[in-house]
Amino acid sequence: MRPLRWEDESLFLLDQTRLPREEVWLRCTTVEEVARAIEEMRVRGAPAIGATAAYGVALGARKGDDPLAAALAAAERLRVTRPTAVNLFWALERMTARARALAPQGPEAVRTGLLEEAHRIAEEDVATNRAIGRHGAELLPNPCRVLTHCNTGSLATVEYGTALGVIRTAWEAGKELHVWVDETRPFLQGARLTAWELQKLGIPYTLISDNMAGHFMQRGQVDAVIVGADRIAANGDTANKIGTYTLAVLCAHHGIPFYVAAPTTTVDLSLPSGEAIPIEERSAEEVTHCRGVPIAPEGAPAAHPAFDVTPAALITAIITEEGVIRPPFEDGLRRAVERARLAGRR
Amino acid sequence: MRPLRWEDESLFLLDQTRLPREEVWLRCTTVEEVARAIEEMRVRGAPAIGATAAYGVALGARKGDDPLAAALAAAERLRVTRPTAVNLFWALERMTARARALAPQGPEAVRTGLLEEAHRIAEEDVATNRAIGRHGAELLPNPCRVLTHCNTGSLATVEYGTALGVIRTAWEAGKELHVWVDETRPFLQGARLTAWELQKLGIPYTLISDNMAGHFMQRGQVDAVIVGADRIAANGDTANKIGTYTLAVLCAHHGIPFYVAAPTTTVDLSLPSGEAIPIEERSAEEVTHCRGVPIAPEGAPAAHPAFDVTPAALITAIITEEGVIRPPFEDGLRRAVERARLAGRR
Repeated sequence: MRPLRWEDESLFLLDQTRLPREEVWLRCTTVEEVARAIEEMRVRGAPAIGATAAYGVALGARKGDDPLAAALAAAERLRVTRPTAVNLFWALERMTARARALAPQGPEAVRTGLLEEAHRIAEEDVATNRAIGRHGAELLPNPCRVLTHCNTGSLATVEYGTALGVIRTAWEAGKELHVWVDETRPFLQGARLTAWELQKLGIPYTLISDNMAGHFMQRGQVDAVIVGADRIAANGDTANKIGTYTLAVLCAHHGIPFYVAAPTTTVDLSLPSGEAIPIEERSAEEVTHCRGVPIAPEGAPAAHPAFDVTPAALITAIITEEGVIRPPFEDGLRRAVERARLAGRR
Repeated sequence: MRPLRWEDESLFLLDQTRLPREEVWLRCTTVEEVARAIEEMRVRGAPAIGATAAYGVALGARKGDDPLAAALAAAERLRVTRPTAVNLFWALERMTARARALAPQGPEAVRTGLLEEAHRIAEEDVATNRAIGRHGAELLPNPCRVLTHCNTGSLATVEYGTALGVIRTAWEAGKELHVWVDETRPFLQGARLTAWELQKLGIPYTLISDNMAGHFMQRGQVDAVIVGADRIAANGDTANKIGTYTLAVLCAHHGIPFYVAAPTTTVDLSLPSGEAIPIEERSAEEVTHCRGVPIAPEGAPAAHPAFDVTPAALITAIITEEGVIRPPFEDGLRRAVERARLAGRR
């Protein structure tokens, strides 16, 4: 199942704000439509945002007489959609570099080449997720009651998933699994998207409110926690969906392994630590409402940091397509990024 | 503001499932109606449940020819409404003991005496909350950014509140406060009820999703956490609304004081530790839905423990009407209960 596809000169996105009750595809024919789909979280998840932005640049280049200028303008617009997931900036960087490299060959080469590059980014993401799944699945015991937060499955990527890909690989390898699914307020990616994916895959799960995770850990009913990432700093500090940090603290308290699964494109070696990662502040209305229904008094003030930063010291291992990295993460992350670059995987 | 009142031979309850957008009073004229109001959480909060049950017994005794038998039958019905908050059992015990003591004086004495006893329980609760407020307010620094979970205000009691009563007393004493309000999924007592009360009182607050508390603690923006209790075991282990335990673990990790505020009627000396506290499992539908709106795929399995148990080791102090109790809690709790009994306060 892929949440995005190129067809008929358009980018089609499965509208994730409508799931799980409605499966509606959104057709984007302009850069602005792609940008808004990212801003409104109709497509979300760091790897999926990266691939969507790549197609957005390709789409931009197909309009007008100067595809290089159009590609650069598209990248400028897409750059300001969401600040935290670094895959967005990585994909835009790759696409604009490609546009500049192709420009001397003329407009048609840019147009064709950028669409090919977007397709490549998408295909690489699928292969990367499969590799993350293989490396990570070995870390889960058998049987395993694993807890996950937010959505990191096919919907968050081009296909297969990162943290949920690990769970899926372990399941497909025959391990006996039960997944605790955090609902992940306020956007409910766990309740709406992860539950939907697990249901389709036939993997047993139990949905819980975010504030229940500690209770089940205390009762000895959680063997591991695995989450995705939106940006990993050079030292291993990891920005991920709000609530992730609390899970890491709970894991440390209970002696439960806490794993992060992400492609090397999520690693940002330019930032020494997590303190420098920009945290997106989203609308208070997403907190004062739930699926559009008001849950607080009229005018209630609310905060909505969309991500938090888990310090490297609380992370047991980071699972990338290049292998499993153990602390201290600095060297391992640098080498993984280097290997991925040399192999043309990022 | 009182969420319950006796009037016109009926118990009127402010329907807390309709707040904050609608203020609807529910008129209960039978024991069954009172029992269902408790089960459906139209009235909730340990002290409020206790007082409501007391009025339920008084109501039962007013019907039929044998008020003692009717009171005992009422208590049997009310006993099976909710299992965790011990104030319910304490109130039923007090009411049935009173009924038995009054029985020799004839039916009218039982009827009148039980209603008087319910009124006494209600008035004592208000005085108790005021005392908790006075003792607890001294623990909050000035200024103070205090985080609370669930609802422990006027709505959770007969009036004034326990943990929220402490916040209110500190505010009324002139301390500069800002309250972080956990929304408290799945029932949203924080978003719906605590925000509503704070708004009415004019105390500044910010609503957050439960999974954001750790993030703001990490950023140094939380000075104290204060919560209520549904049952406190002899050693200080405390059952409270699901999510409380996670807050206590987060406080320990960040060196933030974690306070429990509750009347001595919430202390259950018959249980040596929290392991023996029965934890209510509520309907999965409350987790798969939010204010009646489905948030998960059709048929999604969900767990719904309504409470968790915070071990005494994670609690900085327990604030009762008899004073502030510090660890080890065993002796202090026993003495507080003893003092309250001698003073006729429980």
